Amino acid sequence: MTSTRYDVLGLGNAIVDVISRADDDFLLKHGMRKASMSLIDEARAIQIYEAMGPAVEISGGSAANTIVGVAGFGARAAFIGRVKDDGLGTVFVHDIRAAGVAFETAPSADGPSTGRCYVLVTPDGERTMHTFLGAAQDLHPRDIDDDAVAGAAIVYLEGYLWDPPHAKEAFRKAAAVAHRAKRLVALSLSDAFCVDRWRDEFLHLLRTGTVDLLFCNEAELRSLYQTADLDTAIAALRVDARRAVVTRSANGCIVVEGQQTVEVPAYPVDRVVDTTGAGDLFAAGFLFGMARGLSDDGAARLGALAAAEVISHLGARPETSLRVLAQENGLLK
Amino acid sequence: MTSTRYDVLGLGNAIVDVISRADDDFLLKHGMRKASMSLIDEARAIQIYEAMGPAVEISGGSAANTIVGVAGFGARAAFIGRVKDDGLGTVFVHDIRAAGVAFETAPSADGPSTGRCYVLVTPDGERTMHTFLGAAQDLHPRDIDDDAVAGAAIVYLEGYLWDPPHAKEAFRKAAAVAHRAKRLVALSLSDAFCVDRWRDEFLHLLRTGTVDLLFCNEAELRSLYQTADLDTAIAALRVDARRAVVTRSANGCIVVEGQQTVEVPAYPVDRVVDTTGAGDLFAAGFLFGMARGLSDDGAARLGALAAAEVISHLGARPETSLRVLAQENGLLK
Repeated sequence: MTSTRYDVLGLGNAIVDVISRADDDFLLKHGMRKASMSLIDEARAIQIYEAMGPAVEISGGSAANTIVGVAGFGARAAFIGRVKDDGLGTVFVHDIRAAGVAFETAPSADGPSTGRCYVLVTPDGERTMHTFLGAAQDLHPRDIDDDAVAGAAIVYLEGYLWDPPHAKEAFRKAAAVAHRAKRLVALSLSDAFCVDRWRDEFLHLLRTGTVDLLFCNEAELRSLYQTADLDTAIAALRVDARRAVVTRSANGCIVVEGQQTVEVPAYPVDRVVDTTGAGDLFAAGFLFGMARGLSDDGAARLGALAAAEVISHLGARPETSLRVLAQENGLLK
Repeated sequence: MTSTRYDVLGLGNAIVDVISRADDDFLLKHGMRKASMSLIDEARAIQIYEAMGPAVEISGGSAANTIVGVAGFGARAAFIGRVKDDGLGTVFVHDIRAAGVAFETAPSADGPSTGRCYVLVTPDGERTMHTFLGAAQDLHPRDIDDDAVAGAAIVYLEGYLWDPPHAKEAFRKAAAVAHRAKRLVALSLSDAFCVDRWRDEFLHLLRTGTVDLLFCNEAELRSLYQTADLDTAIAALRVDARRAVVTRSANGCIVVEGQQTVEVPAYPVDRVVDTTGAGDLFAAGFLFGMARGLSDDGAARLGALAAAEVISHLGARPETSLRVLAQENGLLK
């Protein structure tokens, strides 16, 4: 392997989160599935925005959140994703660069506006998401900078990329470039309903070795194997995935690699404000740990810490230095 | 007096806050005066935005924050202010209407983009603000809806309106309409440096009775009378203002009316996260209390409670129902 320019490069939908508090009645009234991510068109986006309460705009996007977290730990990080040259696009680009992430994807000059996700946070901290992909739809294989991908120790891809039409081709191209350069390819399953839309293709990615490391939560894993029984799903996962991390909210996580298993508890949190970004930031800590050569146990502890930080406040991007936080908690020197 | 359509109508700069954490070194390096509000042009706005860290966008504007707070207590509230028909303008209009405030000012179709305020929050919770007024510059007397103003029990105006060229004429028109309809006119001094720019005109407003009620903090009051001695300034205020409320951060507030004085303590706060909006929300509680016919003491307690809520989190708009909060604290039935 040649030397690397980046520790982790992420590829994902470039999205700005529009976050508002809502009660359970609001979800019921508008026919929303709690704790899921639904794709919506522009008409429905306008309808939801008009109905929802006062909001806060914070840059988001699942893989983008992860990459910002990786940079927050002090690693060299890059992101590829598509916004439009508009107000929210300016916000997204500013925020990811200000977080120390290399970001060079040219914004669209025309076409749909920058993607956004309406995040409704209920009093229990759960978030119900409605995403208008917008410009993220136009992520294309030509947006993949081969040199940047080949120069990253790990390439991280989000399952949500299967939703926009050309983005999966960009994903496949990035994975091929990474493997030719003998790099690692990691995938997040993103959301149980996303898995339901693309189950066969995700299983194919695992079984063909296109993916070396899988991140998923229990709901996504159950959806992948269409079973309510977690043990059954994990047994199947041991066969299909080279390595996988299953996050289990307050129950911590399990790392499986063949018949090996490592379990790590969740970090205690005083008050869960908003679970948005918990999985994204867990992946950030784990990927950073891998890039630094830590054990699965050490990497998972960094993931748990980053997840705990992000669920303690509104928004899916860390509000504090993850590097300093990890040092204060004795996980990094 | 005829019956009212609104309890409080506010007139102010329509601004979206772009909030980021910064350390004291950042302020020093960029030659910024801590805890002040500076007006900037578009070039400086771009320069500051490029230098600052990842940000959160939340609707702001001093009088707009106050009016949202008034609505949060359950009163009938309206706002007049100018945005452009662009991304941030859409955010501002959505948020103020979603908070239950009547807002009908037509957005500009061209000209400068929606105003924004870069808010740098230091670890002590203080905020240093740089405002690009943008479309707020184009607030004009013709934007004043005479019927709406005449139908509001209290018209609330921010001192910041003296900065954009035509807005002070809009202010004068609104005050005249209100007084013809025998309504009350309230003014916030906004910022010590704003007072420094417009001292003589603000004193003239007080001495001619254009303003019935003044809100200011200690720094603004000292700036108004160019004295370091608070007692001297308050003695002068008793002569010039019909009624005035001086907010004193953790030391509570003083309401003066001629030789009468009412003092109310601040509400205890576990952790000050961001003082942005403290004065705005104090005014919200006080104005609501006045509209409900409470004593100065009762109104000031509602102000202190609303201020405590807003400094406990990032952003200058309340995150919870002020009406419910006041009920829980025994201040409202």
